[in-house]
Amino acid sequence: MGILAVGSVALDSVKTPFGQEEEVLGGSATYFSTAASYFTDVSIVAVVGEDFPEQHISFLQKLGIETAGIERRPGKTFRWKGEYGFDLNTAKTLDTQLNVFADFLPKLLAEQRKLEFLFLGNIDPDLQRNVLEQMERPKLVACDTMNYWIGNKLDSLRKTLARVDILVINDAETRQLAREANLVRAARVILGWGPRTLIIKRGEHGCLMIDRKSAFGTPAFPLEEVVDPTGAGDSFAGGFLGYLAATRANDQAALRKAVVFGSVMASFNVSEFGPRRLAALTYAEIEARFREFRELTHFEDI
Amino acid sequence: MGILAVGSVALDSVKTPFGQEEEVLGGSATYFSTAASYFTDVSIVAVVGEDFPEQHISFLQKLGIETAGIERRPGKTFRWKGEYGFDLNTAKTLDTQLNVFADFLPKLLAEQRKLEFLFLGNIDPDLQRNVLEQMERPKLVACDTMNYWIGNKLDSLRKTLARVDILVINDAETRQLAREANLVRAARVILGWGPRTLIIKRGEHGCLMIDRKSAFGTPAFPLEEVVDPTGAGDSFAGGFLGYLAATRANDQAALRKAVVFGSVMASFNVSEFGPRRLAALTYAEIEARFREFRELTHFEDI
Repeated sequence: MGILAVGSVALDSVKTPFGQEEEVLGGSATYFSTAASYFTDVSIVAVVGEDFPEQHISFLQKLGIETAGIERRPGKTFRWKGEYGFDLNTAKTLDTQLNVFADFLPKLLAEQRKLEFLFLGNIDPDLQRNVLEQMERPKLVACDTMNYWIGNKLDSLRKTLARVDILVINDAETRQLAREANLVRAARVILGWGPRTLIIKRGEHGCLMIDRKSAFGTPAFPLEEVVDPTGAGDSFAGGFLGYLAATRANDQAALRKAVVFGSVMASFNVSEFGPRRLAALTYAEIEARFREFRELTHFEDI
Repeated sequence: MGILAVGSVALDSVKTPFGQEEEVLGGSATYFSTAASYFTDVSIVAVVGEDFPEQHISFLQKLGIETAGIERRPGKTFRWKGEYGFDLNTAKTLDTQLNVFADFLPKLLAEQRKLEFLFLGNIDPDLQRNVLEQMERPKLVACDTMNYWIGNKLDSLRKTLARVDILVINDAETRQLAREANLVRAARVILGWGPRTLIIKRGEHGCLMIDRKSAFGTPAFPLEEVVDPTGAGDSFAGGFLGYLAATRANDQAALRKAVVFGSVMASFNVSEFGPRRLAALTYAEIEARFREFRELTHFEDI
């Protein structure tokens, strides 16, 4: 058991209406693995530069995350700079410096190839398949992507999608990928390309999971304080896949609970800058919010 | 028992990416009462012009709706013309002709004053209070409003809100009314002004009900075919208040089921132009979709 997470480990500079922070630990692999670490073992494949602070490696290690696969290469670490307005749903990217991430060629350690669960974070779909091919026999593969790859590498992305079990993307990406405005029809198009489950993240509006036979919808947790939405989607994916890996279950009931655990982790993550709040949780807090989600969504039969 | 609904009865010309229709029966009182008619008795207070087709009155009567309070006055009927793009969440108003609606002064019939449930559709908040004052002793008052009244008649609207139990508005209106970007904090501000329950409609993203002690969230029903969203909010309100009036219950469990019945009615309404689909339902179809909502949102405890 245990999850292999491939993605970015980055330094983020983020400004929101509620403050700003420079060069905090970020990246899809960081948020994913921090969230997943509460449920199961996680091992990262990523690349950082010579300037990457050692304290960030320690931060991940203290959560029990395996960091041996984080390669340190000559050059600078991937940096992203973004800003959110009062509508915290969409970030405006101010600057992207790929640095060592531009030449990222994931090379899995021997023990990583044996892992049963794989999260393909939002990277070039060519690299996502490259990672897939290095795995011995993954039991469950989840994948993220973004508008850039849909627009510029659709053929490659389609090849990746043919080989993943679960695609986790947002609603705008779902429509763009399927070229279909109706979300349910868009989901059906994408399910025809390979994934057996599509999870559509809708930010403050919650989440919709669709497969060939059923749909599951849940609102986001209503929060009075949203400080920084960066990493919410990857925190969601970490809680989601973390729960599935921990329970080794794969049925509809488990998938639904996994979606709620994903929503729980995302709801904690947005309450502080960086993965700070996410890293300071207890499992009791996670379970308590899971139960608050039940209280939020429950209604009786007629 | 029974509901008094005050609002517009109009002729709508609507264009969506899926077609267009001219001068179909519309208006807030129409959609509300059509939806509510499946649950309880409804009586309308509204005004139409000399040109209003008699067949539309028959349409409402066939649903068992009391139309004696629809006053016919010299002049033309209220007309609205709007267009929706592929993002079906917001209508672009192309033309509004108030006509006889400009001088609308609701005058309740003797039997209407005795009704126990009141829906104040989206009209001038001065008129909403005028209607309230004509009622003998309403048990439950629900109210809608819109950005125009928030922007132009805030003082009057605040006076109306002080006297209603339940406010049903959309998320943008919630933020505008409270002057607060965070939806949960905005809800708390508005609850401080009078209503004990706030229902925030989020279009395709579902609905959030907030009171001083709890929150209930539900997604919209995922539909493969949305033809015309006109009247979805009033259909929601009709299902919601209709269920509460029919059961005469007012506790949290009943309010939650009422929100789901509202969502059910809205989901049917958007699948055809005008209130056509809404008027052709059976109660068995309504119950079946209620159960589909449970299937859509249910997840097990941990």
